[in-house]
Amino acid sequence: MQIDSKEVVNTQDKVIVRNAAIVEYHGAHFHGWQRQKHHPEPTIQAALEEALSRVANEPIAVTCAGRTDAGVHASTQVIHFDTHAIRRPHNWMMGVNTYLPDGIALRWISEIDASFHARFGATSRRYRYLIFNKEIKQGLMHDQLTWCKFPLDEHKMHEAAQSLLGKHDFTSYRAKDCQAKSPVRTIQDISVRRYGDIVMIEVQANAFLYHMIRNIAGVLMPIGMGRKPIEWSGELLAQKNRALGGVTAPSAGLYFVGVEYPAEFAIPSHAWGPVFVEPWLCK
Amino acid sequence: MQIDSKEVVNTQDKVIVRNAAIVEYHGAHFHGWQRQKHHPEPTIQAALEEALSRVANEPIAVTCAGRTDAGVHASTQVIHFDTHAIRRPHNWMMGVNTYLPDGIALRWISEIDASFHARFGATSRRYRYLIFNKEIKQGLMHDQLTWCKFPLDEHKMHEAAQSLLGKHDFTSYRAKDCQAKSPVRTIQDISVRRYGDIVMIEVQANAFLYHMIRNIAGVLMPIGMGRKPIEWSGELLAQKNRALGGVTAPSAGLYFVGVEYPAEFAIPSHAWGPVFVEPWLCK
Repeated sequence: MQIDSKEVVNTQDKVIVRNAAIVEYHGAHFHGWQRQKHHPEPTIQAALEEALSRVANEPIAVTCAGRTDAGVHASTQVIHFDTHAIRRPHNWMMGVNTYLPDGIALRWISEIDASFHARFGATSRRYRYLIFNKEIKQGLMHDQLTWCKFPLDEHKMHEAAQSLLGKHDFTSYRAKDCQAKSPVRTIQDISVRRYGDIVMIEVQANAFLYHMIRNIAGVLMPIGMGRKPIEWSGELLAQKNRALGGVTAPSAGLYFVGVEYPAEFAIPSHAWGPVFVEPWLCK
Repeated sequence: MQIDSKEVVNTQDKVIVRNAAIVEYHGAHFHGWQRQKHHPEPTIQAALEEALSRVANEPIAVTCAGRTDAGVHASTQVIHFDTHAIRRPHNWMMGVNTYLPDGIALRWISEIDASFHARFGATSRRYRYLIFNKEIKQGLMHDQLTWCKFPLDEHKMHEAAQSLLGKHDFTSYRAKDCQAKSPVRTIQDISVRRYGDIVMIEVQANAFLYHMIRNIAGVLMPIGMGRKPIEWSGELLAQKNRALGGVTAPSAGLYFVGVEYPAEFAIPSHAWGPVFVEPWLCK
């Protein structure tokens, strides 16, 4: 009997299972996604790895769909990790959410085929950028909305955004220290809409360059204020010169809201969020 | 010339002007409204008085429409204060908002007749209580929404809430340490509505007892879960016994959103908020 039991344990030790999960977090509570060797500030990756490792009872390393900077939020970050631990989804959820600190939560988890990769398997990513557009600043969501005191014409911004649609060299919209080999990306969907005092920029692309959405927001906002013509966004694109571009808009308004994978992996479709935005869209 | 100038200064010194203002804040950043003598934690009153005093260049004491507990938010808190300082509204706004910490903002200010009193002059107050209603907790707004994992029937909650409408003895709904002389209050409007994954309880009354909204939420939630009958809210009211009442629901979901005064004071009408809720209502 004891021998049988050991064999079972040994067998389980050898089996490595890949798991996929959806994670939500408030970016202002963390120093960005990536684990920092020389910084004591909490990061999302470190918080997740610690909580998952406690439930798995072994060290776990996670890979995400898209690394986010300090201050950037996610309603739908997708991760994967490998482990010997066999747990029911309900037990992963309850355990990990108990160990995670405030401002981060596991929303879904499932075993998945070993060919799934959260980063390299993603076929598109979607972000929402939220701008509080009122002369006087607000006090309730200072780290969840970017503030623009000058009236924005969201129709002009939407029109200007359309020139970015499609496959382009986005050199004018990427950070100088962006390490991607190619500046070419494909924007599949881009829109600008107003919901009361909040203007929302929404962008879906196959992938994004470093600071790409915040640089797009930094170009669309002066167009919305009437300080730059609608054509400026397209002209900049053609110039392929970051030095001519706009400012990098603040991180507070940026939300990573969606990732798509081939249908065979059956990652659940999820309201993009953030949670308070969804009821704006059910009209 | 110098004598004239001094006279003007002396005259201004003698004139005391009352000002009214609207303030917005994120309750999790403060240890409640009231200045604490023996606590080092920041309070809303202390933050406001410090910022106003710096702009006025003299000590300022503020009075609010309704003191809020630690963790409770306000989109529309009304205050008044007296000062010798004469400043244009624009200069008050810019100065005070520069000195205020993150999580609090002055949204409006004006000189007002000395007969105005933010607390005793208010004819009604309005609160909104927001419940995130989904099995799995969310990570983006852990201190801005109360979490209820069990499905809530908002129609049952709305029906149950209607028995609280009108003038009643709210003993069953007030905190044991409530110091109000009378437990009688008049609820002028009460409703429960769902917006996506969020259930909102909205209550307007002439005034509220200590913990009254959170105790109402603590009764309506078990009714919404089906654990208590719809009649329970009215039965409790009739029993006038706090010991029979529900739990006090958490502070995270509570927002102070409106105060009304006699029209002669011309306090501006203001979207109740919080800012992310308003677009839910424009359907």
